[in-house]
Amino acid sequence: MNEFARIDAFTEAFSLRRPPFGPGDDAAVLPPSRRHQVVTTDALVEGVHFSRETFRFADIGHKALAVNLSDVAAMGARPTWAVCALQLPDDVSAKALRALSSGMAALAAAHGVSLIGGNVTRAPQLSVTVTLAGEVPKGRVALTRSRARPGHRVYVSGPLGSASAGLEVLKDAPRQRSRGGPVKFDRQWDGLVLAQRSPSPHVRWGLEAARFASAGIDVSDGLVQDLGHVCAASKVGMALETGALPVLEALLLWCESEAHVHRHALTGGEDYVLAVTVPPSRASAFERKLADIGHGAFPIGVVTRGHGVVVDGRAFTARGGYQHF
Amino acid sequence: MNEFARIDAFTEAFSLRRPPFGPGDDAAVLPPSRRHQVVTTDALVEGVHFSRETFRFADIGHKALAVNLSDVAAMGARPTWAVCALQLPDDVSAKALRALSSGMAALAAAHGVSLIGGNVTRAPQLSVTVTLAGEVPKGRVALTRSRARPGHRVYVSGPLGSASAGLEVLKDAPRQRSRGGPVKFDRQWDGLVLAQRSPSPHVRWGLEAARFASAGIDVSDGLVQDLGHVCAASKVGMALETGALPVLEALLLWCESEAHVHRHALTGGEDYVLAVTVPPSRASAFERKLADIGHGAFPIGVVTRGHGVVVDGRAFTARGGYQHF
Repeated sequence: MNEFARIDAFTEAFSLRRPPFGPGDDAAVLPPSRRHQVVTTDALVEGVHFSRETFRFADIGHKALAVNLSDVAAMGARPTWAVCALQLPDDVSAKALRALSSGMAALAAAHGVSLIGGNVTRAPQLSVTVTLAGEVPKGRVALTRSRARPGHRVYVSGPLGSASAGLEVLKDAPRQRSRGGPVKFDRQWDGLVLAQRSPSPHVRWGLEAARFASAGIDVSDGLVQDLGHVCAASKVGMALETGALPVLEALLLWCESEAHVHRHALTGGEDYVLAVTVPPSRASAFERKLADIGHGAFPIGVVTRGHGVVVDGRAFTARGGYQHF
Repeated sequence: MNEFARIDAFTEAFSLRRPPFGPGDDAAVLPPSRRHQVVTTDALVEGVHFSRETFRFADIGHKALAVNLSDVAAMGARPTWAVCALQLPDDVSAKALRALSSGMAALAAAHGVSLIGGNVTRAPQLSVTVTLAGEVPKGRVALTRSRARPGHRVYVSGPLGSASAGLEVLKDAPRQRSRGGPVKFDRQWDGLVLAQRSPSPHVRWGLEAARFASAGIDVSDGLVQDLGHVCAASKVGMALETGALPVLEALLLWCESEAHVHRHALTGGEDYVLAVTVPPSRASAFERKLADIGHGAFPIGVVTRGHGVVVDGRAFTARGGYQHF
């Protein structure tokens, strides 16, 4: 495949706007906007964020967009457009590229995201870099990290620790070496593996939560590390209770000990759930609203006058949070 | 260096806006805009677009932004903000990262571009992916590829073939193998090497030209291939004269034959000059305006009723244009 064939193979799964509003010119054109926009960028790199033994190509495309959707959701914004920069080794076939593209296109369609441009280049290993924009709904401001105040309650949008446990499952699973196929794992770990390979970003949750919350962040590098960023930006502390952390039953089954469960829930990366702080006066309305849309909000602790994150009454040094170096 | 130290080393050369309008939140926030925006993304990958033997780290940072600036310039837009996704191998030192960052920050400052966000991840080899936005000046529309009409004149913004010849110079130059330093080359090839390592995107030229032009593109993959995109989008042909192609004197000195000169000028990639078509009624005003700002416009041919690019009266099959595969 030459460059143009690769671009065609990648873009055919998307319903594209025509140039100059979609791909096909030197840059895509966007109409004027009366609302605040948010912009984020994140990359998935082979050998760092995924391997071809444990991820299907559709997962790679899905996750590359999902991690960006989670950032936009954490700002309380509605995703709008994306550009995608692909680095493709020569051994990625047209079929594999179409699978990657289909995974991304399905998630984009589900969230109303338009692919407006991109870039394709050769490279020694596969990576997918997405830049995603969103718009802040009319009459609102973006949800940021700096307005958590002592007494505000801390909530997360879903179970913690699943994705890092899912990575353990995938690494432990026997490879089908003879056929070079994907790893096999027991169906009981489906929820954990799904969280790792194909996370569902909580976009609707973020949009609704932003109407009540004082601060928000997406939990991508481990709960304690990410809440630490909110503490630093807001100049507050947080007290969490491990007994309140939502986890999948599969996580309890997978882990050998309670300490192992807590390690995943507190420091495991890539959960792509959202964490927000909510003033107590708004807490019950917030909880009702999220129950209404059929999506829970899990209270896990409270904002304090201290600094840093305290877990079960003890200062927690978040050494375990995922760092890329 | 851990992830946060790398982010600090990269961002310190930039004058950043504070979060949520700059880096430091889950996404950057942009105010509403009353003008059309343009967005483009492009990546530089080690071993594909540069090597550490022939590029300095400052060149890598400069060029990663420059190639995007050229796309925005081709749309007749003024660059506004950028996000940068870095893939860094472990052997890129803090000093090297600062040099890369300084090269990009200087070019960003020269063009009034704000770095509003980014991402840093480990990777087996170095790559820099920039997403750049611009705004179309008040009362204008973006310059696209689809409105060239027969009789319109074809112009370029600067010398052709320099960058691909510069790559030949760098590949021919003796390596200082003992010290692992950069390659050495004779000063007479400075102009060619500069065009390859540190291209100057023609942003002001694009902004002025868009007031007169019917279509535009940036010449990044070779003149004939890129003009072929304009022909296809506008459903026209073009007739070029090799005698009219602007080239550096150093290119004439470097090349062994006229055919070699023409190969560089017609098919060499990475020149990052702009090509536009201008209706004849506006041609003299266009030429005067660009002379006024001290930047030439070089007429190289004319739009025809045919299809595809004809050079000196013969159909040109642009096999030589740079493709990434």
